[in-house]
Amino acid sequence: MRDRFELAPISPAGRRLAELASRHAPDCAARSERHDREGSFPVESLRALQSDGFLAACVPEELGGLGVESVVDYAVGINRLARGDGATAIAVNMHMISGWLNAYIWRSAVARGQEERAARAESILRLLGSRSVVIASVNSEAGTLPHRPRTEAVRVDGGFRVSGHKIFGTLSPVADLFMSLARVKGEAHGDWMGSAVVPRDSPGVEVVENWDALGMRASGSNDVIYRDCFVPEERFVPVGPWGVLGHGFYEFTLTNHICLSAAFLGVAESARALALDHLQKEQKEPRPGPRAQNPLLHPPVAELEIDLAAARATLERVARAADDHFTEHGFGESPEQDLLDVFREFQTAKLFVQRKAIEIVDRAMTLVGGGAYMARHPLSRLYRDVRAGPFMQPFSPNEALGFIARVTLGLAPDDGL
Amino acid sequence: MRDRFELAPISPAGRRLAELASRHAPDCAARSERHDREGSFPVESLRALQSDGFLAACVPEELGGLGVESVVDYAVGINRLARGDGATAIAVNMHMISGWLNAYIWRSAVARGQEERAARAESILRLLGSRSVVIASVNSEAGTLPHRPRTEAVRVDGGFRVSGHKIFGTLSPVADLFMSLARVKGEAHGDWMGSAVVPRDSPGVEVVENWDALGMRASGSNDVIYRDCFVPEERFVPVGPWGVLGHGFYEFTLTNHICLSAAFLGVAESARALALDHLQKEQKEPRPGPRAQNPLLHPPVAELEIDLAAARATLERVARAADDHFTEHGFGESPEQDLLDVFREFQTAKLFVQRKAIEIVDRAMTLVGGGAYMARHPLSRLYRDVRAGPFMQPFSPNEALGFIARVTLGLAPDDGL
Amino acid sequence: MRDRFELAPISPAGRRLAELASRHAPDCAARSERHDREGSFPVESLRALQSDGFLAACVPEELGGLGVESVVDYAVGINRLARGDGATAIAVNMHMISGWLNAYIWRSAVARGQEERAARAESILRLLGSRSVVIASVNSEAGTLPHRPRTEAVRVDGGFRVSGHKIFGTLSPVADLFMSLARVKGEAHGDWMGSAVVPRDSPGVEVVENWDALGMRASGSNDVIYRDCFVPEERFVPVGPWGVLGHGFYEFTLTNHICLSAAFLGVAESARALALDHLQKEQKEPRPGPRAQNPLLHPPVAELEIDLAAARATLERVARAADDHFTEHGFGESPEQDLLDVFREFQTAKLFVQRKAIEIVDRAMTLVGGGAYMARHPLSRLYRDVRAGPFMQPFSPNEALGFIARVTLGLAPDDGL
Amino acid sequence: MRDRFELAPISPAGRRLAELASRHAPDCAARSERHDREGSFPVESLRALQSDGFLAACVPEELGGLGVESVVDYAVGINRLARGDGATAIAVNMHMISGWLNAYIWRSAVARGQEERAARAESILRLLGSRSVVIASVNSEAGTLPHRPRTEAVRVDGGFRVSGHKIFGTLSPVADLFMSLARVKGEAHGDWMGSAVVPRDSPGVEVVENWDALGMRASGSNDVIYRDCFVPEERFVPVGPWGVLGHGFYEFTLTNHICLSAAFLGVAESARALALDHLQKEQKEPRPGPRAQNPLLHPPVAELEIDLAAARATLERVARAADDHFTEHGFGESPEQDLLDVFREFQTAKLFVQRKAIEIVDRAMTLVGGGAYMARHPLSRLYRDVRAGPFMQPFSPNEALGFIARVTLGLAPDDGL
Repeated sequence: MRDRFELAPISPAGRRLAELASRHAPDCAARSERHDREGSFPVESLRALQSDGFLAACVPEELGGLGVESVVDYAVGINRLARGDGATAIAVNMHMISGWLNAYIWRSAVARGQEERAARAESILRLLGSRSVVIASVNSEAGTLPHRPRTEAVRVDGGFRVSGHKIFGTLSPVADLFMSLARVKGEAHGDWMGSAVVPRDSPGVEVVENWDALGMRASGSNDVIYRDCFVPEERFVPVGPWGVLGHGFYEFTLTNHICLSAAFLGVAESARALALDHLQKEQKEPRPGPRAQNPLLHPPVAELEIDLAAARATLERVARAADDHFTEHGFGESPEQDLLDVFREFQTAKLFVQRKAIEIVDRAMTLVGGGAYMARHPLSRLYRDVRAGPFMQPFSPNEALGFIARVTLGLAPDDGL
Repeated sequence: MRDRFELAPISPAGRRLAELASRHAPDCAARSERHDREGSFPVESLRALQSDGFLAACVPEELGGLGVESVVDYAVGINRLARGDGATAIAVNMHMISGWLNAYIWRSAVARGQEERAARAESILRLLGSRSVVIASVNSEAGTLPHRPRTEAVRVDGGFRVSGHKIFGTLSPVADLFMSLARVKGEAHGDWMGSAVVPRDSPGVEVVENWDALGMRASGSNDVIYRDCFVPEERFVPVGPWGVLGHGFYEFTLTNHICLSAAFLGVAESARALALDHLQKEQKEPRPGPRAQNPLLHPPVAELEIDLAAARATLERVARAADDHFTEHGFGESPEQDLLDVFREFQTAKLFVQRKAIEIVDRAMTLVGGGAYMARHPLSRLYRDVRAGPFMQPFSPNEALGFIARVTLGLAPDDGL
Repeated sequence: MRDRFELAPISPAGRRLAELASRHAPDCAARSERHDREGSFPVESLRALQSDGFLAACVPEELGGLGVESVVDYAVGINRLARGDGATAIAVNMHMISGWLNAYIWRSAVARGQEERAARAESILRLLGSRSVVIASVNSEAGTLPHRPRTEAVRVDGGFRVSGHKIFGTLSPVADLFMSLARVKGEAHGDWMGSAVVPRDSPGVEVVENWDALGMRASGSNDVIYRDCFVPEERFVPVGPWGVLGHGFYEFTLTNHICLSAAFLGVAESARALALDHLQKEQKEPRPGPRAQNPLLHPPVAELEIDLAAARATLERVARAADDHFTEHGFGESPEQDLLDVFREFQTAKLFVQRKAIEIVDRAMTLVGGGAYMARHPLSRLYRDVRAGPFMQPFSPNEALGFIARVTLGLAPDDGL
Repeated sequence: MRDRFELAPISPAGRRLAELASRHAPDCAARSERHDREGSFPVESLRALQSDGFLAACVPEELGGLGVESVVDYAVGINRLARGDGATAIAVNMHMISGWLNAYIWRSAVARGQEERAARAESILRLLGSRSVVIASVNSEAGTLPHRPRTEAVRVDGGFRVSGHKIFGTLSPVADLFMSLARVKGEAHGDWMGSAVVPRDSPGVEVVENWDALGMRASGSNDVIYRDCFVPEERFVPVGPWGVLGHGFYEFTLTNHICLSAAFLGVAESARALALDHLQKEQKEPRPGPRAQNPLLHPPVAELEIDLAAARATLERVARAADDHFTEHGFGESPEQDLLDVFREFQTAKLFVQRKAIEIVDRAMTLVGGGAYMARHPLSRLYRDVRAGPFMQPFSPNEALGFIARVTLGLAPDDGL
C-alpha cells in the first residue's frame, strides 16, 4: 500500500534516520511477539540499532552521530521504528532524548560563547556518539509530577548522595547510565533540583525487574531505586528550582513526548496496515473477491483514514512548531509565554494523537473481526500497546485538560497540578 | 457504594437468581486473575454454580430448576455474576441458554397441546434440572454466519454423521454435551439444518485446547471439531431451512445475546466500582484528602455515570421487550415482522451496550491512572475482557449496522449478510 | 412507518392523553412554520389543547382533569405533542407541571390527613380542572439558579410585595397566572422562599415581548418583570429555606424536566421520520429506486436508530424511577439520599437524551442532504429547536456534570453551583 | 487573546492578503447581523473588498492582482475574512477561485509554451485584475454531481445555446458573469462538458432570488437558470468528457474546497473567541471574578482547544499538500494516482475540518450558556452558518466516506457516486 501522506523527514539527516528506521522495523516486528509474551527486553534489536548509529541520531555528526536536529526528523524516525515495534521505539527514545537535549544545549551554548556549558554537553555527546553506552531518562515517581521529584540529593563531600524510587524506568534492562531528577533541600535560595547521571553499577542502584503491564511489555519499564548513591558534583547538573514548571521541564518534555506520540502513531499505522491488508485479501465465502468490495465496510475504513490524516497533521504541525521554537530561542532562554504557548499547543496535540491512535487500532480490530481478538494476532498486541499512550506523563489526560484550559484562559499554569 | 439503579430482577425466581449470582461473584472474582493469566477454565466456579443450581436457573421448578422465565431476570443473573468474572459469566450462559430455550419451547408446546415437542423439551429440561450435565451451544464457524453452517450432517442408518469445525466453543473444557447446528444437503424440500446434541465422548469429537485470546481467557472458547460423529435421529432437532434467518435463529440469538450483553455490562460495572473506590481513597500528596475532591475529575466521572445509566436503560428496555414478545407469542409462532422489529431493536441495544461497556472500562482506566495499566491491576484484565463484546456474533458490528438499517428501511433483512 | 418501540403510556389515563396528543400534533405541525418565522405564539393550538382538556391532563378526574398520575404517561403526552411542534409542547408543559405537582401534593396530603395542604392544592386543581386559566411557571433568572432567586418578596399587610426580573418565561403570551419563586429576607429562621401566584393583570406585572431566539421561537419565553406586585398571603406558598437544594426544587424539577426532555425527544423523532421518508422516496437519478438502497447510507441510518433506541430507553427508565419514587414517598417526605439518587440519575438521563436528540436531528439533516438546510424545510427548524435542550435549566450541562459527579462521589451536591 | 497557532501565510503576497482580510473582517462582522436577518447580500463589504484588491488576490501581480499563488495563503485569506463573516467569505471565494484557477493554468501554460491556453487565461486574468467584474462559479444542480451536469449546451452557429438550472449560486446577487459547466451531447468522441462564461445580462439568464436558508443567509446562493442562452465559442472552455471525474474536477474542487473549509474554520474561530471572551469577563454572582476560574469549565475549554488545534493542523497540511501538488505538476498533467491520492487526503481533511468546526461552535455555545441561544447573540448565527459546511459539495459526507474508502482500497473512485 503506497502511503504518500505518512510523516516525512525534512532534512538529509532526517532521511537517513527514517531509512534506518524502516530497515530495522521488520526485524523489530519479527521479535515483538516473543518479547511481548515473555515481557522481555528486545536486546538484539537494541544492539542492532545501537551499532547502526540509530541511538546516536541526534548527536552532531562531528561528535559521532547522525546529526538530526529537527524534532520533525527525530519524530519521524521514532514513528517508523514503532511501526515495527512500539515498545522498542519508546525504549530507544528514552536514550535518544539525551542526545537531542544535549545537542540543543551544545548548539545554544556554542552560539552564545558559554564555554563551560558547551564543554559539558560536548562530553556527554561524545559519549553518546561513541555508541558505547545506553542512557535511560528515568523520572516518573508515584504520586507526584516530574517537576516535584521526591528523590532527594543530599550534599556530601565532592558531590551528592541520592535516594529515591523511580518508576516506569523504560529501557532499564540495558541502560548503562540512568539520568534522574533529584531534589536538593534547604539551601539558601530554596529547594532546587538537579539531574543526576548514575552508572548502573554504582553502589546503591537497584533495577527491580517488575515491569509487567497490559502492553508495551517489551519496554523494560522497571522500577529503579537509588539508595544513598554517590553522584560526583560534575554528574549532577542543576536544572532549576524544585516544584517549578520551568524551561528544563518544558523543553525536555516537549521534544520527548512529541517523539513518544510519534511512536503511538506508528503503532496505529501498523494496525491500519493490517486492516487494509485483511480487507484486500481474496475470500471465497460468503462473497467471492476481496472483502473490500463490501460497501458496509467503507464508512469505517474512511473514518479510520480521517482519524489517521488528522493525527498525522496534528503531530506534524506541533513538531514543526517545536522546531521553530528551538531554532528561534536558545536553551532555557525563550520568553515564558512563548514556551507556555507552544507547550500548551503540544499538550493538545499529544492528547489528540494518543486518542486517535487508540481509535485507529480499535477500528482496525473491528474491520479485521474476531481473528484480531486472538492472542497470536498482532492487532491484539497493538490494542494493548497503544493504550499506554495516555498514561505517558506529564501530563495525565485530566491534568492535561486542566493545564490546556488554564494557559488558554490566562490562569496560572500549575494551579491544581 | 450504593447503587440504586442497577438492573433488578422482576420476579421471585429472578431475585433468587440474582442473590445466587451476588453470592458467587466474589469467589469468581478471586479466581479470575489466575485463570486469566493461565488461560485456564474456572472449573471450581463452574462446579459451585452447578451444585447451587445457578446453571439450572431457567429450568422450571417442577423439573429441577429455579424457574426463571423472564429474560430480564436471566440477564440480571448473568450481569451480577459477570461483575465477579466476565469469562465465567459468558461461559455459564452458553449452558443456561439451552435451559431457557427449552423451557420456552416446553411452555409453548404444553399450552398448545404439542405433546411430542413438549416431551422432547421436557426430557432435556429434566436432564438440565438434574444438575448432572453441562451443555455448550457451539455454533460459530469461520467465515460464515450461524444460519449458514458449513458443518454437515449426512443421513445414515438411525441418524446422521456430523462433520465440521466449530470455533469460539465457549465452556468446552467442562461441557458434557455439545449442541451445534449442522446442514443437511440435497433433500427434497431443499437444504435444511438441525441442532445436533453430541456427547463430548462421542467418537469423532475433538476439543482443541487452543483458546488463547486477548481477553475472556478463562472462557474456554476452544475449537470443537466433529469428524463423522454419529448422532442418533432423536438427538438431531430440525431447526428450519438452511441459510434462512428464521425463528430459530432470531429467538435463540435474542435471549442469548441480551444475556451476553448483560455480562459485558457487568464487566463495565466492575470497572466503574474500581474507579470510584480509587477516587474515594485518601491520598497524602499532592493534595491530602480523597482524590474525589479534584474538580477536574468530575466531568469524566459524570460521563462514566451517563454512559452507565444509558447502557443499563437500553439493555433493560430490550430485555423487557423480549419478555413481552415471548409472553405474547409461542415458540416459532410470532409474525415475522414482529420478530424482525424486536430483533432489530435488540441489535441496536447490543451495539450500544457493548460500545458503552468498552467506554466505561476505558474511562475507569483513565480515572485510576497508570496503575490501571499494570498486568496485576484488575482493570487491565477488564480492558481486555470487555473488548470481546463486539466480536460476539451474530452480528459483527458492521453486519449489525447493515441489518438495522435494512429492517428500518423495509429492505430484505439478510441482503448483504 | 410503524414504530413499535416508541414511548408508550402505561395507564388508561395515559393512553387518553397520548391519543389526544397524537390527534393535535398534526395541527400543531401545520402551524409551526408560521409561528417559528414570526416568533409568535401558537394561540390556536393552545386554545384547542385547552378546550380538549390536554392542559388539565394531570388534574384528577374528580377535579376536572384526565387523571394522569404517572410521570411516564405525562412524558408520553408531551413527547407525542412535540412531534408536531416542540415549542408548543414545552409551552403547555409549563402549565401542566402545576397540575401534576398540585395533584401529587393533594394525593399525598389526603393520604396523610393534612387537610389544609389538601384544601389548598384542591383549590388550585379545581381552577386548573375548569380549563379556564393558563398558568405559567416562571423561575429562571439571569446569573443564578432557581433555588437562589433574586426576586424578592417583602412582607406587607396581608401579604407580600414582590419585585424581580424573570427570564425564559415560556407560555407567557397566554398565561393568566404566573407562578414564581421569590426570596423573603431577614426572618428569624433565615431567608426563605415562597412560590407566588400572580395574575397577569396585577399592577406591576410586565410581560416584555422580547423572546427572539435561535429556536423554540413559538414558545413565548419572554421576560416577566414584577415591580412591587402585591401578592396576598394565601397566594404565597412557602417552599423552603432560600439557597438550599430541597425537596421542592428536586421534585418539581424532576417531573418538569423529564417531560421537557420528552419534548426534545419528540423533536428528534420528528426529524427521524423526515429522514426515513426522504430515503424511502423514489428517485430517478443517479440511481433509480428509493435512495434507501444505497448501502453507504445504511451505517448512518443505523447509528440514528441506535441513538434513538438509547434515548428512549434512558428517558423511559428514569420516568419509571420517578414514578416509583413518587409512589413510594409523599410530597416532600422522601429521605434526602433517595431524592439525591433519583435526581442524579435523572440528570444523567437529561444530558443523555438532550445530546442524543441533537445528534439525531443532525444525522437526519445529513441523510436528507442540502435540501434540509433550506429555511422552508422543517429539518432546519428542528435543528434550531432541538439545540434549546441543553439550555433548559437546572442544570446547565457543565453544572450537571459537576452535580452528577459530586453525588456519585458522596460530596456535597451543591458545592460549586 | 493572542493566538500564535492560527493559520499563517507563507509568502509576502499571502501576508498582504491576510492583512487585508484582517482589516476588512471587523466591517464584515459589523454588517453580518443585518444581512443574516434580512437574507440580503453584503454589497458594501463586497465592493470594499473588490476595490482593495482582495477579490483579485490570486491574479498575478503583473496582471493586476496580489500575486497569491499558494493554496495555503489563499486559504488563510479566506479564513481570516470568515472570522468577520462566513457568508461574505464563501461568497468572495466563488469569485476568487476563478482567479486562482486561471493563474494556475496561465503559469502552467506559459512554462510549457502553450500559447493559446496562456492567452485565454491571461485575458480572463486581466479582466479579474481590472477589479471591474465579479464572476461566480455556479455548478451545483439538484440530484447530480458537478461532473455530471444536466445543464446542456447545444452547438449553434458561433457557439452554444445553454439551458439548465443551477442551484446554490453563491455570490449571484452581485455577479457580473457566471461560470457554469454544461454538457454537450452526442459528439463523435462522446459527451463532453465545457465551462461556459455567461454575462448576467445575457438574454435567457435568470437569477431567482430564492436563497432562504438556515444559515449563510448573506451568501446570495440563489438559483441561476439558463434558458437558451447564447455563449460564443471562445467563452465555452472544454473541460473534459462528461460524467468522468477528471483533472478539471479534481483540481478545481481541491483548491476551492480547501478555501471553503478555511472559511468554516474561521467561523469556528470566531465562536471560540466569543466563548473565551465570555469566560474571561468578570461576574459578580454567584462567584465573583472571571467565570474562567470555575474548574468545571476547564475540560470543555480544553476540548475546544484540542478540536481547534487538530482542525487547523489538518487543514494546513492538506493545503501544503495541494501546494506541493500544483508546484510539481502542470495544469491537467498530474498522474491520475497522484491526483487521486491528494484528493482523497483532501476529502478526509474536508470532512474532519467541517465536523470540528461544527463541534467548536457547539462547544462555544455551551460555554457561553443560554445567552448564546438568543437570536441577537452572534453565536446563534455562527451555529446556523457553520452547519452549511457538510453540505458544500462535492462530496456530501456519505459520498465522501465512500470515495475515501474506495481510493484507499484501490477500488474505482467513482463507483457508487
